[in-house]
Amino acid sequence: MKEVKAIVKPFKANDILSQLLQAGYENLTVTLAEGTGNFNSDDSSLSMHFSITDSEVAVIIVVCNDSEVEKIVSIISSNGRTGNPGDGLIYVSDLYKVFRVKTGLEA
Amino acid sequence: MKEVKAIVKPFKANDILSQLLQAGYENLTVTLAEGTGNFNSDDSSLSMHFSITDSEVAVIIVVCNDSEVEKIVSIISSNGRTGNPGDGLIYVSDLYKVFRVKTGLEA
Amino acid sequence: MKEVKAIVKPFKANDILSQLLQAGYENLTVTLAEGTGNFNSDDSSLSMHFSITDSEVAVIIVVCNDSEVEKIVSIISSNGRTGNPGDGLIYVSDLYKVFRVKTGLEA
Repeated sequence: MKEVKAIVKPFKANDILSQLLQAGYENLTVTLAEGTGNFNSDDSSLSMHFSITDSEVAVIIVVCNDSEVEKIVSIISSNGRTGNPGDGLIYVSDLYKVFRVKTGLEA
Repeated sequence: MKEVKAIVKPFKANDILSQLLQAGYENLTVTLAEGTGNFNSDDSSLSMHFSITDSEVAVIIVVCNDSEVEKIVSIISSNGRTGNPGDGLIYVSDLYKVFRVKTGLEA
Repeated sequence: MKEVKAIVKPFKANDILSQLLQAGYENLTVTLAEGTGNFNSDDSSLSMHFSITDSEVAVIIVVCNDSEVEKIVSIISSNGRTGNPGDGLIYVSDLYKVFRVKTGLEA
């Protein structure tokens, strides 16, 4: 299985999550973080926590089968892009194993 | 080494962390995030940040030796389950290398 | 490519991020989380969220080419150390693929 981790603009997160759910992907996780670098743009602002960062980012995590990566990247990209610099990146990594908390067994 | 990342119900996090510490696992990290999908249940509520999510989740990260994965999954599962749907998932991935900040050398 | 994830003391995060940016690493992400274990020290305090944790930590994520890991670990270590216990750890993992949100294509 794969973990797909997308760093996107927070105001795009609802659209991305909504489309992922509609496509049948469950167990999505999302959190706010802070970014630097190419993320800075006209709407960037000083972070509350770290003086060096300049924009809020949303981090979306989807775990999926290997065969679903292409579809998920496509949904995130088509719903996450603004056309401006700093739309974000999608990192895909291998998972060794996935377990359910409820059973302690592999999912 | 392995990274064990558990997405669990926040009110179970203290029990899980406490049992992991008691079993000798240090350097635990935990943060709050938001979830969708199977996490929704009677106690779900609208997120403050993302309108599409419906429950808070705690993300616990433990880094361990390969031989410790089974024990850690068992501790998280036995202390994290409620018997209701949406108890969460545990993702295990390989780590390439681990370094100490203090020395810059491999741990 | 590699994901470098550093768990460091929050008051060291600005220095680390600043030096990473100065060395040309963009697309840094940082968030606050809570830690247990070796992180506790004189300046530790009870968490607002989880009663079992005892210190705030900053989680910095940098994605880079394989050849850049050594340099990045060195920057994080030299700017993140205090000489006291609990300076933190740096986890390096392999990335399978990286995509740009803007294009949906591999970065």
